[in-house]
Amino acid sequence: MTSATLTIDLGAVVRNWQALARLSEGETGAVVKANGYGLGAPVVGRALQRAGVRSFFVATAGEGVTLRAAIGQGSDIYVFSGHMDGDTKALREAGLTPLLNSVDQMLRHAEGLPGAPFGIQLDTGMNRLGMEPAEWSALRDIALAQGPSLIMSHLACADEPGHAMNRHQLSEFHAMTNGLDVPRSLAATGGALMGPEFHFDMTRPGVGLYGGFPFVDAEPVVTLDLPVIQVRDVQQGETVGYANGWTAPRDARIATVSGGYADGLIRAMGSHATLYAGDVPCPVVGRVSMDLITADVTDLGGDPSHLQLLGRHQSVDTVADAAGTIGYEILTQLGLRYERVFTE
Amino acid sequence: MTSATLTIDLGAVVRNWQALARLSEGETGAVVKANGYGLGAPVVGRALQRAGVRSFFVATAGEGVTLRAAIGQGSDIYVFSGHMDGDTKALREAGLTPLLNSVDQMLRHAEGLPGAPFGIQLDTGMNRLGMEPAEWSALRDIALAQGPSLIMSHLACADEPGHAMNRHQLSEFHAMTNGLDVPRSLAATGGALMGPEFHFDMTRPGVGLYGGFPFVDAEPVVTLDLPVIQVRDVQQGETVGYANGWTAPRDARIATVSGGYADGLIRAMGSHATLYAGDVPCPVVGRVSMDLITADVTDLGGDPSHLQLLGRHQSVDTVADAAGTIGYEILTQLGLRYERVFTE
Repeated sequence: MTSATLTIDLGAVVRNWQALARLSEGETGAVVKANGYGLGAPVVGRALQRAGVRSFFVATAGEGVTLRAAIGQGSDIYVFSGHMDGDTKALREAGLTPLLNSVDQMLRHAEGLPGAPFGIQLDTGMNRLGMEPAEWSALRDIALAQGPSLIMSHLACADEPGHAMNRHQLSEFHAMTNGLDVPRSLAATGGALMGPEFHFDMTRPGVGLYGGFPFVDAEPVVTLDLPVIQVRDVQQGETVGYANGWTAPRDARIATVSGGYADGLIRAMGSHATLYAGDVPCPVVGRVSMDLITADVTDLGGDPSHLQLLGRHQSVDTVADAAGTIGYEILTQLGLRYERVFTE
Repeated sequence: MTSATLTIDLGAVVRNWQALARLSEGETGAVVKANGYGLGAPVVGRALQRAGVRSFFVATAGEGVTLRAAIGQGSDIYVFSGHMDGDTKALREAGLTPLLNSVDQMLRHAEGLPGAPFGIQLDTGMNRLGMEPAEWSALRDIALAQGPSLIMSHLACADEPGHAMNRHQLSEFHAMTNGLDVPRSLAATGGALMGPEFHFDMTRPGVGLYGGFPFVDAEPVVTLDLPVIQVRDVQQGETVGYANGWTAPRDARIATVSGGYADGLIRAMGSHATLYAGDVPCPVVGRVSMDLITADVTDLGGDPSHLQLLGRHQSVDTVADAAGTIGYEILTQLGLRYERVFTE
């Protein structure tokens, strides 16, 4: 094996979706933005469609075009960034449903694609995307007359179920949408786990499908095996890597693997990270460089052909801790030099 | 404009290469690994080939195959990871030159591709890739008899010219290669800037071509403009983004732009980062999320259509400082959702 191998368990993605779908009585969509959280939106999208997903969510019209080409007709593809300047042609040709975020977007949509499907994104306190209460009050009668297919909002603190912001946003969402005859969605993965109050007509999990926090009962989805290029003896006191980043405290055997920050193995993880040879942890030594990582394999008793970063012993969230970030970033940065192998 | 635009000045890449080439009397190659440091190896490779580059360097055989398809025949493509298990077919079909790192690789090459070109990578102290002095002593007569086209090593501390490691590695490289009738290369960008002693027969700049440290006189190569999705008023005391990451200290106007950590805008930069509207700095507020960043545009006096992250006011190295990393990582993580526009 010459390149690193990212193995993606599509069966686990589907089972994670099914597990999250069982939590609510309404529809369960699937968020496949950022190229399916780094795993490959076309393949993941097709697997989820076969499993019964009928509503997909992407970040941009460009992502929607790619997904539509992969999954064909028959499912809705919602676009979180709505109808931006320049999007009209892509939205029309790929049959995408923009989630309109503002009066400007509503006007653009009405003018550019009259009668075409759309949803509404409301801001309930995150102040990032969506119409403000006042804007929505002014616009809602006009918007409702055109038949939106979905009204949604997004929780800012759903990874912390006890955070007061969750109930505040829930209350705002009720205030802005109660009594309207339009399907509603508030919950992504975190909201789906917080219980029926947050479910409304559709939940739309993202990170949970891919095995990440806050869905702690998720099946792991990815394994990442990095091939060893060479293994060398390093004497006590010798240094390894850029800026002499590590000094051997004893005579050691050091493996250099193919994979580095250009592959999304975040440089900040450095020597906080661990690779595994089977069940044996091999500490990363020295800096993560652009294409290479060095690890201490002294205690193995033999030279490994590969070392594993993600898999049975380490989840995306464990690796995220080593890098001082969150599992979402580890997933979405998974690199394109990896050979992606999909299993069911 | 619906997606962010990454503008890549190929003329600047070429002029940076020419400026580095003028520093040495020998050949000057070009490192285009990691997809041309994130900019697009095929386009960058063709521009550099037109400018006169005849020796390219990539990290893996897979990258070499992609580059060969782009630039055609007539230039050498060296592969830093050498001849790994499984590489033989790709090396042969794309006419790549592996830089052999070990006895194992030498045997694999002699067996799999007898008579095919190769180079030798020596370890002079970085302990990451390349043959150790003892290994090289045992192998060199056999290796030399097969006519390597290049012998090279890599400096661990070339970004710090005063570091004692540089002279140590120089001395080791002399000891391992003096008197051999084979072209030699020790210097990447940092080494090229350290003067003739480090140049040998070929320098092989990478990051300097793309405008990054340590080539402080480089022309900037990239600009990154993020489109604004919407702009909203936020009252003093309201919060913005995930985990209520920012609280408005005054009534403010907040722009949400398309672009986030899934596009390589490293999450760690958070509110240390600044976007620009023309010449006016707009501080990032709250967390960098997967697809979106929020910035304070209160002082602009009007709503911007785009905000700039990389360009006249901020280099890759400035942004790297905000993220606690190095310019190399900012470059190589530049995302694939950007529209890449190449100018000359």
